Amino acid sequence: MKNYITLSDIDHVETIIREARSLKSKNASSKPGKGKTLGMLFFNNSLRTRLSTEKAAKLLGMEVMVMNADKDGWALEFEDGAVMNSDKAEHIKEAAAVLSQYCDIIAVRAFPGLKDKEKDESEHVLNSFKKYASVPIVNLESATGHPLQALTDAITIQEFNKAERPKVVLSWAPHPKALPQSVANSFTEMMQRLEVDFVITNPEGYDLAPHIRNGVKVEHDQEKALKDADFVYIKNWSSYEDYGQVLNVEKNWTVDQAKLKNTNNAKVMHCLPVRRNVVIADDILDSENSIVIHQANNRTFAAQAVLKRILECRKE
Amino acid sequence: MKNYITLSDIDHVETIIREARSLKSKNASSKPGKGKTLGMLFFNNSLRTRLSTEKAAKLLGMEVMVMNADKDGWALEFEDGAVMNSDKAEHIKEAAAVLSQYCDIIAVRAFPGLKDKEKDESEHVLNSFKKYASVPIVNLESATGHPLQALTDAITIQEFNKAERPKVVLSWAPHPKALPQSVANSFTEMMQRLEVDFVITNPEGYDLAPHIRNGVKVEHDQEKALKDADFVYIKNWSSYEDYGQVLNVEKNWTVDQAKLKNTNNAKVMHCLPVRRNVVIADDILDSENSIVIHQANNRTFAAQAVLKRILECRKE
Amino acid sequence: MKNYITLSDIDHVETIIREARSLKSKNASSKPGKGKTLGMLFFNNSLRTRLSTEKAAKLLGMEVMVMNADKDGWALEFEDGAVMNSDKAEHIKEAAAVLSQYCDIIAVRAFPGLKDKEKDESEHVLNSFKKYASVPIVNLESATGHPLQALTDAITIQEFNKAERPKVVLSWAPHPKALPQSVANSFTEMMQRLEVDFVITNPEGYDLAPHIRNGVKVEHDQEKALKDADFVYIKNWSSYEDYGQVLNVEKNWTVDQAKLKNTNNAKVMHCLPVRRNVVIADDILDSENSIVIHQANNRTFAAQAVLKRILECRKE
Repeated sequence: MKNYITLSDIDHVETIIREARSLKSKNASSKPGKGKTLGMLFFNNSLRTRLSTEKAAKLLGMEVMVMNADKDGWALEFEDGAVMNSDKAEHIKEAAAVLSQYCDIIAVRAFPGLKDKEKDESEHVLNSFKKYASVPIVNLESATGHPLQALTDAITIQEFNKAERPKVVLSWAPHPKALPQSVANSFTEMMQRLEVDFVITNPEGYDLAPHIRNGVKVEHDQEKALKDADFVYIKNWSSYEDYGQVLNVEKNWTVDQAKLKNTNNAKVMHCLPVRRNVVIADDILDSENSIVIHQANNRTFAAQAVLKRILECRKE
Repeated sequence: MKNYITLSDIDHVETIIREARSLKSKNASSKPGKGKTLGMLFFNNSLRTRLSTEKAAKLLGMEVMVMNADKDGWALEFEDGAVMNSDKAEHIKEAAAVLSQYCDIIAVRAFPGLKDKEKDESEHVLNSFKKYASVPIVNLESATGHPLQALTDAITIQEFNKAERPKVVLSWAPHPKALPQSVANSFTEMMQRLEVDFVITNPEGYDLAPHIRNGVKVEHDQEKALKDADFVYIKNWSSYEDYGQVLNVEKNWTVDQAKLKNTNNAKVMHCLPVRRNVVIADDILDSENSIVIHQANNRTFAAQAVLKRILECRKE
Repeated sequence: MKNYITLSDIDHVETIIREARSLKSKNASSKPGKGKTLGMLFFNNSLRTRLSTEKAAKLLGMEVMVMNADKDGWALEFEDGAVMNSDKAEHIKEAAAVLSQYCDIIAVRAFPGLKDKEKDESEHVLNSFKKYASVPIVNLESATGHPLQALTDAITIQEFNKAERPKVVLSWAPHPKALPQSVANSFTEMMQRLEVDFVITNPEGYDLAPHIRNGVKVEHDQEKALKDADFVYIKNWSSYEDYGQVLNVEKNWTVDQAKLKNTNNAKVMHCLPVRRNVVIADDILDSENSIVIHQANNRTFAAQAVLKRILECRKE
């Protein structure tokens, strides 16, 4: 693997899931990262991604250097040809090239602005790093995707699955703030690579981008969608059509135990952080149905599998 | 030791002091923390605690991950049953459970708000971590206590003590801001476990909580209290009775050389940071009487002894 | 080497350059920093210095603890005898003494205020650390100098030089903000120690301090100065005479390919971050003339050579 920017960087998803689970089951004794350095750059807040990726790298024997990009370093300019006489002190061309000399892998988190669809979809931050860095780039959640989370989700579904072909429902949930579509996007892409029956349910106006859905069924009736579900992945995202907006929604989409009634005693997933009693009710999160904590644990092993693969590729 | 949240988590204070001093005297060759991770979460600023605890963990062979809780991660909700539709993005239930999967020990600093006595005394931040985490919790100074500092203080008194039963005076000092009672509380509790004559002196209105004083003599006349002291621990705290307030005080409580005249050439202690010429005068801090720098050095070995004990307990 | 605060801490510049280049050419197998701790304190932003010095220390086997001084710790007081009843919580006397117990080497970045020439020239932050710390201090850029950068620059010139005695020009460039003279100062001092023909070119009013120039020629005609140059070091600094001010300048001092015409196909250097098309034009930065990325890479080896020397000195 050369980079890990989108799911398409994984050739055989089953193989890497197997590897992640194998890494989870044993204390890794081999240290393919010895003498190598991971640089982690955060343009946005992070708890799980920050700590699980740092931990994964150290389990592989890597050194880790963490930076809050703008707060610790310099505000970055991404526009080509810019006359930098304002608030941006450093161009991504220099930043990425220089970091490539200090780090063997660069991991970047950069959320979308949610104002300009075209700019967000161009993934200008992440792709600028990819363009100007000479080392592999790992996506720690970008404007439109969160492929480390999606790998985690796939691992978790495999661990808990008892059906031959489980029904997996991605259910939109309310949220007071406008959030990216990145987690929902990557989850949708991942489900298309697994042996699952996948349904998305969201209010009208919240359909994910057509190139992401790629023919996946969207059921606007939540109750119908949840019927017989084995896994329910609950997540808010802002509107794609009315880009970045929080729309008025008629009924209550918060998922609680009552809504699980007609599921197949579904396991409930969320990427966290989750706003209790807004996105998911306490009565689920505090019950056996919730596997959100197990899911978060798998972040470490997803990151470890991805970093290991990148390290091995570089050795070749 | 399962956690280190209050002094009562130490069974035999003499044993752990001996261990800390032994750790100090040699370069530890055993690495009981190898392959283990300490997560450090700061809700407040820190210099000594941050660096000495990080150093202690690394001396034990641990990996360390440090986070400024709210600034790097997500604002945490601590109320049970909260409908999280406002500024808090993550509930402590998830945060503590998730961190327990990435870390073998979690260390937390969370100061009191000093507005609501009941809330502060409930130690809702620290106790929420204890309740929802599945790994040991170390108190890096909480709303009402600073037991790592108190262990440091005990080590330091033992190192410098020449008397059979030294007289130790905790002397309140002025300060422009309202500070927690935590250091004074834990010091008072620790002194009750050592073979010392312990006296507290503070202005009227500044008596520590009765359940902390626990019968310890409070002498409102500072001059009287300091007489024949072998150790003077100087520290400001805000009022407990008039909770969190800075009261008007008639005389000058700043300690200087003149005030040490009637002591037994007392050693002067402070947890640091100390405001010079407000809490303690230059003529003490720059003299042989001051042992505040030696005291700060012992932070490393107090933390090392506590972490070592927790690691050993987990192995059993 | 006891400290690395100014270039004068280097006895034989050629020897340390050779050592840095030797460290660069091989994966260091010896770990003279094993069991030692580097503490890095930032009073200002940093990307290259932060990551390259952290990496250098780890390459030597050291543990590294990084702190944003005021944001993570306590606001520091530097005035002797201050009555600390305002916004400063800790005096440098305690901070430096305490850090000396947790760290084997302390590295500090502290930019000038650019308001008070005398205060900046006294290097009160860095020199206070030197005065009150009991361990070596490394300058990560101070009010008036950046000697790690200057060592990097010397290494880079040696690597790229083909002439017996190359012509090196330091050329002032425009910038929207008032910047320190530190990089230009240390570069000027370093050039006086190498076998080069050194010329400074800047607009009237921007002459560096006389005790820094020390007789070095200042040519106010940029075109004349650049003629036959082998290396052009481009850098902005604020006025020394009209201290800390950004003056109106008649002509355009931004360096682009047209201005390189009469040079000896000069290599172009900059310490980074660089504002494109303000300080240096894209047509240089994206060309073979630019060696700014190679230069940044040498930061690691300059830091490694300096830290190694300090570690070796302490063993003696």
